Amino acid sequence: MSLVKGNCIVAQSGGPTAVINSSVYGVLKRFLEVSEGGKVYAGANGIQGIIEGKIFDLGALDSSEQEMLKYMPSAALGSNRYKLKDPKTMPEEYENIFSTFEKLDIKYFFYVGGNDSMDAASKLNEYAQANGHDVKIFGVPKTIDNDLVGTDHCPGFASAAKYICNTAIECWMDVNCYKDEGIIIIEVMGRDTGWLAASSGIIQKAVPDVNQLIYLPEAPFTESKFIEDVKKAREKNGKILIIASEGLKDENGEYINIDSNCYSSDAFGHKQLGGIGRYLQEVIKENIHNRVKMIELNITQRCARHCASKTDIDEAIMVGEAAVDYAIKGISGYMVGIKRTTDKGYKAVADLVPLNEVCNMVKKVPVEWINIEKATVNQEMIDYIEPLIVDQVDSFQSNGLVKYVNLTKKFVNLD
Amino acid sequence: MSLVKGNCIVAQSGGPTAVINSSVYGVLKRFLEVSEGGKVYAGANGIQGIIEGKIFDLGALDSSEQEMLKYMPSAALGSNRYKLKDPKTMPEEYENIFSTFEKLDIKYFFYVGGNDSMDAASKLNEYAQANGHDVKIFGVPKTIDNDLVGTDHCPGFASAAKYICNTAIECWMDVNCYKDEGIIIIEVMGRDTGWLAASSGIIQKAVPDVNQLIYLPEAPFTESKFIEDVKKAREKNGKILIIASEGLKDENGEYINIDSNCYSSDAFGHKQLGGIGRYLQEVIKENIHNRVKMIELNITQRCARHCASKTDIDEAIMVGEAAVDYAIKGISGYMVGIKRTTDKGYKAVADLVPLNEVCNMVKKVPVEWINIEKATVNQEMIDYIEPLIVDQVDSFQSNGLVKYVNLTKKFVNLD
Repeated sequence: MSLVKGNCIVAQSGGPTAVINSSVYGVLKRFLEVSEGGKVYAGANGIQGIIEGKIFDLGALDSSEQEMLKYMPSAALGSNRYKLKDPKTMPEEYENIFSTFEKLDIKYFFYVGGNDSMDAASKLNEYAQANGHDVKIFGVPKTIDNDLVGTDHCPGFASAAKYICNTAIECWMDVNCYKDEGIIIIEVMGRDTGWLAASSGIIQKAVPDVNQLIYLPEAPFTESKFIEDVKKAREKNGKILIIASEGLKDENGEYINIDSNCYSSDAFGHKQLGGIGRYLQEVIKENIHNRVKMIELNITQRCARHCASKTDIDEAIMVGEAAVDYAIKGISGYMVGIKRTTDKGYKAVADLVPLNEVCNMVKKVPVEWINIEKATVNQEMIDYIEPLIVDQVDSFQSNGLVKYVNLTKKFVNLD
Repeated sequence: MSLVKGNCIVAQSGGPTAVINSSVYGVLKRFLEVSEGGKVYAGANGIQGIIEGKIFDLGALDSSEQEMLKYMPSAALGSNRYKLKDPKTMPEEYENIFSTFEKLDIKYFFYVGGNDSMDAASKLNEYAQANGHDVKIFGVPKTIDNDLVGTDHCPGFASAAKYICNTAIECWMDVNCYKDEGIIIIEVMGRDTGWLAASSGIIQKAVPDVNQLIYLPEAPFTESKFIEDVKKAREKNGKILIIASEGLKDENGEYINIDSNCYSSDAFGHKQLGGIGRYLQEVIKENIHNRVKMIELNITQRCARHCASKTDIDEAIMVGEAAVDYAIKGISGYMVGIKRTTDKGYKAVADLVPLNEVCNMVKKVPVEWINIEKATVNQEMIDYIEPLIVDQVDSFQSNGLVKYVNLTKKFVNLD
């Protein structure tokens, strides 16, 4: 195989995950393998860094720092929530980016992120094609929300799910060691989709006596049904584990209790009761029982590398590598999807998904996978999550703390 | 060595931990080794179960269930918060207990727990001696609060600390991957002592760029100093990690903001702002900056076996074994303490601590280990925690979830 000419650049975007650096590691290692001495640049803080010329040489990191990308949680390159303007109204931004690419002889751009990042990559791809820039552009999926279409699942999701499931089991065992009644509500992320909450259904397999209720945005929420569910669960057992997505919605698709929960940005205390978990806690206290604890996992669930899934890490690396493999064949404008094959047990393979079919779409938990009546999930959902959360890697340093290094960023001079 | 006659009983009490079952495992395994075919009974839900005659045969569990005790978080025997009455006013309770012990030929009682459990064990020991009951009584320490006197540290503490430190690092890396400012407050347990909060000081060693402030009950809290601290930290870096014990106190030893935080049991929403974390969040929002997240770890930190310290597990087993070793020598009325030796690196050995010197005492973080001015801890605190959180064991089942089994409890018939 002849070696590839030119350089590449990789950047990260959106909320960080336990494995987003693993995808960067995949891009870096594979590109160095196939390249004729080319460079792997990184944009600091995503596309925003590229626009601002904050670009550093990832391949110049010493090998121990490169290896660290495989283990380190969060976004080591820096992330951003910058939204690219429309190329028609703001072509300067695009001209700026491609001019930088030209200066640095960048022929490949890999953007690791979620919906917004795929949208940015799609716009850049269209601009490149319309303006004759020979840069191959690829999206590398990442999101704990697991809501990208065209892929069986998204790197980052499984590790977050694994952390949530283990935390939920541990909390259940905590409340369950007492004779007294006790209800625990765990609020997990998911504003529009309930993949993380739904994943917790697998607890029922590991802990058959768990008395669990699951609420997610895909199942319209009513307070009266919720009260009824809790009362019914309480007849079975005075201990109940409730897992709720932050974005519960009513039958009209409106967020529940939007005035008093975290969607309000009021800074003066009284309205800031917290999110949906706090609301559900109040509903139970007022209607059922006073012993109810609420745990909002908040950002702990995003980068919980200490409880990451090896499958997730391996796949995060795989999609990074596959993006390089596809791009150097001359393909552009795609996201690397994950296709699940189950012929001989679970296997994940890379797949091509057109970027313009991904961006601004949301993949929801199929309603057939949910049992709304019983506030739980069906076997399909359990079968789906089961192979994704298995196996561990040692993400710890010798001192018992997760691996960390402050990357030596040698910024390039673009003048 | 001649084998020991008679049976023993073990029970668990107080808040569960990641390793309290490991101590039961230590008692069980060692007693079966040294006993002449004696039984190891367990009291379900602590002393309360013993009073109610809810006692089962732990040695009758099959070996896979016995092994599971080594790995499973929370209190597998069941816990309780029952407080033994004074033997002078309520001798019936004590007569009941010792009559049960006699029926079951129980010569040794091992109580795994914190301050209250040591108090119960102490009372039982005094009663036994005053009334001629030949039962050796031992306390086995357990508490994530680490506040028992007479021992260098308490099993359960190190695993909780390790979980908190890793979670805090991951949250710091999360907030730190953005360019925007961001403050994170993590509220950890500790109503009267700040061992868990103080432990997080070790983060500074693993992540040198962390911009961290630590608040604990041992350091009198004032709102004005807090605001000043945060403002000063913000001059260094717009990202700040704040770790606060739930039980912060003012210069008069009164809990901070006691009206509006979680100590209030008001069930009608408006006053229930949550705990100290929520209060600190409001202080920052009103005085400094609006981008501040608050994470109350709540019970997730108690049984986080998925992030347990191997040192902690090993020591939890060791104190269980040592209790048996001491008791069969005829010693009674002691807790097994942990003595730290540092001649050739860190080593922990068992120690005898009289129960009546332990109960109702609280060991605080030494003020010399805290830097109140800078809201951080000194090197002594870091040296103290460092060897306790190292090494992992695989606490997971093949499905990626923490090990769990519902113990087969064959209750004895006392009639």
